[in-house]
Order: sequence, then structure tokens, then C-alpha cells
Amino acid sequence: MGGLLPAIVQDEATGDVLMLAFMNREAWEQTLTTGEAHYYSRTRNTIWHKGGTSGHVQRVKEIFLDCDRDTVLLKVEQVGGAACHTGHRSCFHRRRHGDGWQVVGSPIFDPKEVYGGG
Amino acid sequence: MGGLLPAIVQDEATGDVLMLAFMNREAWEQTLTTGEAHYYSRTRNTIWHKGGTSGHVQRVKEIFLDCDRDTVLLKVEQVGGAACHTGHRSCFHRRRHGDGWQVVGSPIFDPKEVYGGG
Repeated sequence: MGGLLPAIVQDEATGDVLMLAFMNREAWEQTLTTGEAHYYSRTRNTIWHKGGTSGHVQRVKEIFLDCDRDTVLLKVEQVGGAACHTGHRSCFHRRRHGDGWQVVGSPIFDPKEVYGGG
Repeated sequence: MGGLLPAIVQDEATGDVLMLAFMNREAWEQTLTTGEAHYYSRTRNTIWHKGGTSGHVQRVKEIFLDCDRDTVLLKVEQVGGAACHTGHRSCFHRRRHGDGWQVVGSPIFDPKEVYGGG
């Protein structure tokens, strides 16, 4: 995994799984220090303070470690209600249906308004 | 990720996140064909029919795909009630507490009885 720790992110209130992200040591330490989720962006090769742009930060309420000690589970308060850059509550908003995928639910914000560029 | 697809596994009934596993194409196809979760074991370098030894299979009820199309979420019925080889319901049974980790809950089966070697 290239020294990166997978982090499963779950909405503390609803139990919905919101996303999977990765942490390096610095992201882990900044998460512990600030109480807000920080990840490592594999595409941008940098620390990523989730919600730093949109204001939709994730306040970390509980952290769990798995039996192999190589994956963490964060239970978070998702500010703004949506974790996904598409505006959906969860990044897992496509459900297997027959041989394809069906989008479930509707975005709760408009990405153009939140991130600009609209 | 070496061509492997991370799969987050969630208990359909309780919403508990049970484990993180990985799939290669064959594991994915066997999961779809049989309706029971199959993963790829990175340590044993082989397909792993979860519960094939213990009988504690995972019956896949729903599958979700994330926005980047590189991670899946399985909602499963966990036969036997515990996903973890330690006998705990979830592999995520250590909670961050101060600067350390505290085991939460108790095993619901004795691994020695299920896997032998006791």
C-alpha cells in the first residue's frame, strides 16, 4: 500500500459509509491534533484537509483500528451533510442493479456552488 | 493498488463496518456468481472464499460503487454473526482511547473451536 493507511469513513449519526481515503503519517497526526479528518491525496501527492475548500469538514468522533492493525475506521460528523464531491451524502451512491449500476438518492448540494467554476 | 479493488464490508442488519478486504477480477466474479463474498488474499496470494473454513460466509445483499469507481461497499448478512477471525463481530474492535487502543466488546465465538488447533 506504499506506506498508506486506508481509512474507512462512516457517518456517526446515520451509520452510512461515506468514503474510503488514505492517510500517511502526517495526515494521521494532523487528524489527531485537529480533530478534523486529513487524508493523503494520491493524485495530488499532498495532504488534504477534507472540507478545507468547501467547509464540509469531517469532525472525528471515534477512531477504530482493525485486527491486522493496517486499516482505520473513522466515525465522523459530516459538516454540510455530504461527503462526496458530487454533492451526494456518500461516495457510494451507485448500487449494483442487474449487470449495471444505478444512482441512488440525490445530491444535497450543487458542486458548482460549493467549489465554484459554475 | 496492484489491480486490486478495496471492498468495505458492512453488516446489512446493524450497519457495523465489519472489515476491509481486496478483490481481484476472479474474486469479484465469484462473488457475483455465488452471492457469497470472495476476496483476494494478499498474504496467501489466492482467492479466499470468506467463511469457507468456518461456515461464517457473507451473503451479499447489496453492492455499491464509489464515485471514483475504484472501491466497492458490500452490505452483507454475516452468517455466524462475527466477521473477524478473532471471534469479534467486527475487525474494527479496537477504539482509540487517549494515546492507545482499547478493545471494545467481546468475541462471540472461540476461534479455537471454529478453526481448530485448540
